[in-house]
Amino acid sequence: MDTKIPYKIYLSENEIPTQWYNVRADMKNKPAPLLNPGTLQPLTLDDLAPIFCEELNKQELDNDTPYFDIPEEIQNFYKMYRPSPLVRAYFLEKALGTPAKIYYKFEGNNTSGSHKLNSAIAQAYYAKKQGLKGVTTETGAGQWGTALSMACSYFDLDCQVYMVKCSYEQKPFRREVMRTYGAKITPSPSQTTNVGRKILSEHPDTTGSLGCAISEAVEAAVTQEGYRYVLGSVLNQVLLHQTIIGLETKKALDKYNIKPDIIIGCAGGGSNLGGLVSPFMGEKLRGEADYQIIAVEPASCPSFTRGKFAYDFCDTGMICPLAKMYTLGSQFIPSANHAGGLRFHGMSTILSQLYHDGLFEARAVEQTQVFDAAVQFARVEGILPAPESCHAIRVAIDEALKCKETGEEKTIVFGLTGTGYFDLYAYEQFNSGTMSDVIPTDETIATYLAKLPKVDK
Amino acid sequence: MDTKIPYKIYLSENEIPTQWYNVRADMKNKPAPLLNPGTLQPLTLDDLAPIFCEELNKQELDNDTPYFDIPEEIQNFYKMYRPSPLVRAYFLEKALGTPAKIYYKFEGNNTSGSHKLNSAIAQAYYAKKQGLKGVTTETGAGQWGTALSMACSYFDLDCQVYMVKCSYEQKPFRREVMRTYGAKITPSPSQTTNVGRKILSEHPDTTGSLGCAISEAVEAAVTQEGYRYVLGSVLNQVLLHQTIIGLETKKALDKYNIKPDIIIGCAGGGSNLGGLVSPFMGEKLRGEADYQIIAVEPASCPSFTRGKFAYDFCDTGMICPLAKMYTLGSQFIPSANHAGGLRFHGMSTILSQLYHDGLFEARAVEQTQVFDAAVQFARVEGILPAPESCHAIRVAIDEALKCKETGEEKTIVFGLTGTGYFDLYAYEQFNSGTMSDVIPTDETIATYLAKLPKVDK
Repeated sequence: MDTKIPYKIYLSENEIPTQWYNVRADMKNKPAPLLNPGTLQPLTLDDLAPIFCEELNKQELDNDTPYFDIPEEIQNFYKMYRPSPLVRAYFLEKALGTPAKIYYKFEGNNTSGSHKLNSAIAQAYYAKKQGLKGVTTETGAGQWGTALSMACSYFDLDCQVYMVKCSYEQKPFRREVMRTYGAKITPSPSQTTNVGRKILSEHPDTTGSLGCAISEAVEAAVTQEGYRYVLGSVLNQVLLHQTIIGLETKKALDKYNIKPDIIIGCAGGGSNLGGLVSPFMGEKLRGEADYQIIAVEPASCPSFTRGKFAYDFCDTGMICPLAKMYTLGSQFIPSANHAGGLRFHGMSTILSQLYHDGLFEARAVEQTQVFDAAVQFARVEGILPAPESCHAIRVAIDEALKCKETGEEKTIVFGLTGTGYFDLYAYEQFNSGTMSDVIPTDETIATYLAKLPKVDK
Repeated sequence: MDTKIPYKIYLSENEIPTQWYNVRADMKNKPAPLLNPGTLQPLTLDDLAPIFCEELNKQELDNDTPYFDIPEEIQNFYKMYRPSPLVRAYFLEKALGTPAKIYYKFEGNNTSGSHKLNSAIAQAYYAKKQGLKGVTTETGAGQWGTALSMACSYFDLDCQVYMVKCSYEQKPFRREVMRTYGAKITPSPSQTTNVGRKILSEHPDTTGSLGCAISEAVEAAVTQEGYRYVLGSVLNQVLLHQTIIGLETKKALDKYNIKPDIIIGCAGGGSNLGGLVSPFMGEKLRGEADYQIIAVEPASCPSFTRGKFAYDFCDTGMICPLAKMYTLGSQFIPSANHAGGLRFHGMSTILSQLYHDGLFEARAVEQTQVFDAAVQFARVEGILPAPESCHAIRVAIDEALKCKETGEEKTIVFGLTGTGYFDLYAYEQFNSGTMSDVIPTDETIATYLAKLPKVDK
């Protein structure tokens, strides 16, 4: 073992970054603005005010300020679970027999089980600061809902979570963690909102969808005094909060004079990827350094690699704002056989613009290969990874094996976003050999893309 | 926030202890020897050789050597998940409004979810060193089985786990983690052993018991060439391996010149409690320092507080050795309503002797109070604790509240042995208000104690 670099690089608590970095400030081509779905005009602070918290709206629309101070209360909360370790994957390197040096930033060592807590605590803080009574949100698998429940519990805010009905029934344990943190969980669609009642009257047997849960959560926010809606990915503000991942990673690497060659992150809505790569991307945009950055997405939901860069609705219900992004069409839903998360049809507008400008590459991977990497990783590195995170592991292993062939000693850094303790049904499918790959046909994708809204921008 | 003491005290990797401490070396009254259940004579190395690994048997019987070197391979493995943090519970202190200073040693940040991995890796190492093909064990809730699966995967050892049938069926996720690490899981009782077949023929509808699973695992070990049996608690060797917890805790405290007044651990078979308190107990035995040490057990399985200090069988099946310990009788089984783990009828012989000699105190707590503490802790400290660990949290909170009354600024250290991610059924019971307390009557306990084996020692 190379004893000069510890197995786990921990920053000390006073080294935790005190500012978030806004990569938009360094982008020449700014991300396109969100559009009001009614007027198709760029959203203003006034448009956003009834739905989201004030301070968060300012963060959302600010393309120029490079750094935002992290409020002290958030810094205090960070101390519960940050700094997260940057781990040198010595055991994985040895198992692969690669000359590559592999590092992963592990965000799973908290009860929410993922990086989602980084934005949840920020959004809960600003809601509290605004004097709100509570917030509403939706959750599918439950990671975001859990993170938000923890954050709201800390600030004594009411937390109302609309949980996709099939998840509510199939994942009672996720639901129970949220209840333990005091959140109110409603299976969606429900009788508590107009949109829920409408959907139930038309489709009494529906098991729900994320699109429907979003609609209910938004309605609940705007119809209750003192409530706002919060969202766990895609938005610019979320990427901003998640830069704590990349900033810590860079600080830890700098401490040991390590310069990464390749940086890898999984991509669903983009919050983890954007957070991890932002500081490195900033250097790249400013011409100070170069890195190979790779986004990894599921072959069953390939927004970057097979989607179109165009304005589209952010939700299946087509009531949310439009974003210019890589999209498979707002009606695209990945196969039910897909087990690995990262199911969003679109992508962060920031990442979409950067990808469009050729600043990073993207790869789509099939889920059996993803779980193959997961098991290999778990057995040598100890951690049982979340299916989402395994997409990044897959490509990190692929790149390390290329180094084995070429003899190159590249330094690879990837984001290990979370743990898989609540995803064991997917592991069971893989362990039992019943997991299959599902790749949408060209015809399927073309059909959904043909339905993109016509926006003259 | 007191910024002089960090929220989390992490030792550096080169500060991880390189020796385990054997508290027996400092005990004037040594723990009574295990007895051969056939001859009622003290067990010898020869008696133990067919069942357990050689090196482990030496550790088991050694009452004199104060320190054992930790083999380098185990030290390497430690780096995956150790040092574990010693956390200052600033948020809990604030919520309680106590002048007490509360610290907890958190052993849950690994995929097995608990401290069990500390002994699993040691036992797997010695099995590998002896050239064995594999090991067998039993598991109830699954923590120990998961830890052993991880350790065996690391050393490429076959791992055969007999899992109590009702757990196998009710906890498919625990089972799946073990399978992911390559272990073979058999629901017990099974058709794979004589004892299993016998039980099934007599009780075809049984859902199994830990006692039966132990019997099957032992039979599987002694009837397969190159296999031995391993056990996750109670034994002297297990306490020895678990002293890594206490040694790290003491080193972290010493680093900041912190002297604890009270040390609290939950007690089932005693592995966590013994591991945490051993170094402090050693100072107490040598007259170098004094500490108030508190063992916390469930009121539904109160070995220390209502059991008898006597020789008894270690298993329900009465085929395992006899140990002199605090016991409720080998036929005692806690109520099925009991959700909090720590179900063993007896206790480590080391801890039993120390308790008998008045070196620490014990308290029994009811489970609704335990989960009340769990939820309070989770909401302010972020971590969702294992039900076992919550017993220690309960008493830590009680002691901190006493300090609030008296104004004393005591320093309290407790062991947070693991996370509750696989125990959410119990949380659901608590959150729904359907959890009840079950305390055995005096008559019940007297009935079981009347059946203790007659041993003239």
